[in-house]
Amino acid sequence: MNEFGLIARYFTRPAANADLGVGDDCALMRVREGMQLAVSVDMLVSGRHFFADVDPQSLGHKALAVNLSDLAAMGAEPRWFTLSLALPELDEGWLAGFSAGLHALADQHGISLVGGDTTKGPLTLSIQVAGELPAGSALLRSAGQPGDDLWVSGELGAAAAAVMHGCGRFRLPDTECRAAYRRLEWPTPRVELGLALRGVAHAALDISDGLAGDLRHICARSACGAELWLEALPASDCLAVLPETLRREALLSGGDDYELCFSAPAVQREHLAALAAELGVPLTRIGRLVAGSGVQVLLHGEDICWQHGGFDHFGAA
Amino acid sequence: MNEFGLIARYFTRPAANADLGVGDDCALMRVREGMQLAVSVDMLVSGRHFFADVDPQSLGHKALAVNLSDLAAMGAEPRWFTLSLALPELDEGWLAGFSAGLHALADQHGISLVGGDTTKGPLTLSIQVAGELPAGSALLRSAGQPGDDLWVSGELGAAAAAVMHGCGRFRLPDTECRAAYRRLEWPTPRVELGLALRGVAHAALDISDGLAGDLRHICARSACGAELWLEALPASDCLAVLPETLRREALLSGGDDYELCFSAPAVQREHLAALAAELGVPLTRIGRLVAGSGVQVLLHGEDICWQHGGFDHFGAA
Repeated sequence: MNEFGLIARYFTRPAANADLGVGDDCALMRVREGMQLAVSVDMLVSGRHFFADVDPQSLGHKALAVNLSDLAAMGAEPRWFTLSLALPELDEGWLAGFSAGLHALADQHGISLVGGDTTKGPLTLSIQVAGELPAGSALLRSAGQPGDDLWVSGELGAAAAAVMHGCGRFRLPDTECRAAYRRLEWPTPRVELGLALRGVAHAALDISDGLAGDLRHICARSACGAELWLEALPASDCLAVLPETLRREALLSGGDDYELCFSAPAVQREHLAALAAELGVPLTRIGRLVAGSGVQVLLHGEDICWQHGGFDHFGAA
Repeated sequence: MNEFGLIARYFTRPAANADLGVGDDCALMRVREGMQLAVSVDMLVSGRHFFADVDPQSLGHKALAVNLSDLAAMGAEPRWFTLSLALPELDEGWLAGFSAGLHALADQHGISLVGGDTTKGPLTLSIQVAGELPAGSALLRSAGQPGDDLWVSGELGAAAAAVMHGCGRFRLPDTECRAAYRRLEWPTPRVELGLALRGVAHAALDISDGLAGDLRHICARSACGAELWLEALPASDCLAVLPETLRREALLSGGDDYELCFSAPAVQREHLAALAAELGVPLTRIGRLVAGSGVQVLLHGEDICWQHGGFDHFGAA
């Protein structure tokens, strides 16, 4: 099998949302009237974003999930995506698994693979997604207002606990370990929630680099500060076995959870509780936006002076 | 400087064609009414698509140029692009050069960088471009018709000669060497030509893997065959110093020229001659589409039985 056979077998599928899919110089799509296009891109490098021996099916899932999460954070409906893939060798078993994980999640969200590029090289992949939303309805990082409640979806910290285990920082018991790896490798993009938050939430983002660090982006762009209530954070059950320092680190600075953090006016509390029940996604009030700047982490009202770094790919290791 | 500083300094520019550029979970754009979106993506890996010590400014240029070439081959007007970049280390000199080359070409074609992802890893980059064209006006690989003339823009083979020199297959004299590297490292995407070919050409593609191999894609999708006239091919002056076998290889199988190959009915010959003069881009008639299948290379009417491979990233080295 050569490069073209590989593309035909594993990556060429009918592109439901496109006028023309894989196979020409470009794919061709139409954007529906009155809609704005939302576009995001992520790059995943072996040994950096995932362990080299990761199950290829989960990698296919995760590579698309992290991008769908960006669409969710904007309130955009997934429409199409492209894939760039550098592979050290043509391994059919690996490709079959990877493409199965990718397509399964794509089908679930009705997003079409419309183009790509496959080449030889150190295992690296980049996915770019595009979604649509009614013009002017995006959930912007800049839309937070002092007085807004801060909310987070789902549970926090499990993915970080898996990374701590993988790096040898803490040995998780088997049950917690399985649960934590499941969250790290099979994140659930909160696409439906993102759509439901249009017109309800003010600012929103997805937590990919850690809650406290990511929240700073909302503060900076909304020109306000934030209080986070440590005791209110919805911790994953996996964290119960961790010492308190690691538990806090997982909750506040752990990446890879891909939950949504958003601000909303207090008047939306009842609506959000109903929405959580309807979607089957926990929504927890974890703090508030305040006048000022920066993120303050409080434990029962006391500032714990958290040094939230957030993840910096070029920071000191 | 950290990852965010890097993005702010080198990659955050006003995104003229976007409602929202770099800095949120997604960029937001609008597609003009009646227009179709054309999207393409390419991935470039160090040591595979470029020499590791290549001038970063030319790499920035080339990374975008190869994608603009895909838009040109479709007849689409460049609108916006995203960049995924894995870097072994944060080298400001390299980043300054790379981003200067990238932005200079972007400005020249009015295309906006609207999003990206930067991470640590083996030097790899992926650019995804989007352009617009009036719905239904794209130059498709499937639109060729037996009897069409085959045309190519510019000159062929210089980039391949540079690769032959770089790999030690043939030592080019200094003058030819400089000219050949200039073509390899600073390709000119034929964007204006692509726009002008809408409604004039039938099928079109850009030559990235070699004329004879790429032409097979038009034949396969248009369900026809093609004759290429070797003596008619517009050879770069650099090729004069090569032995005939390498000269033919550079002309027929050399990638990286990023010229457009297109088919057009005979009735367009005068118009195309005028267009060549108007744009200052040579257009040469190099063969024709015929009934049947496959690409035949003729020298003064005799089949030379050319074994055109085209480049396969996973083929035997």
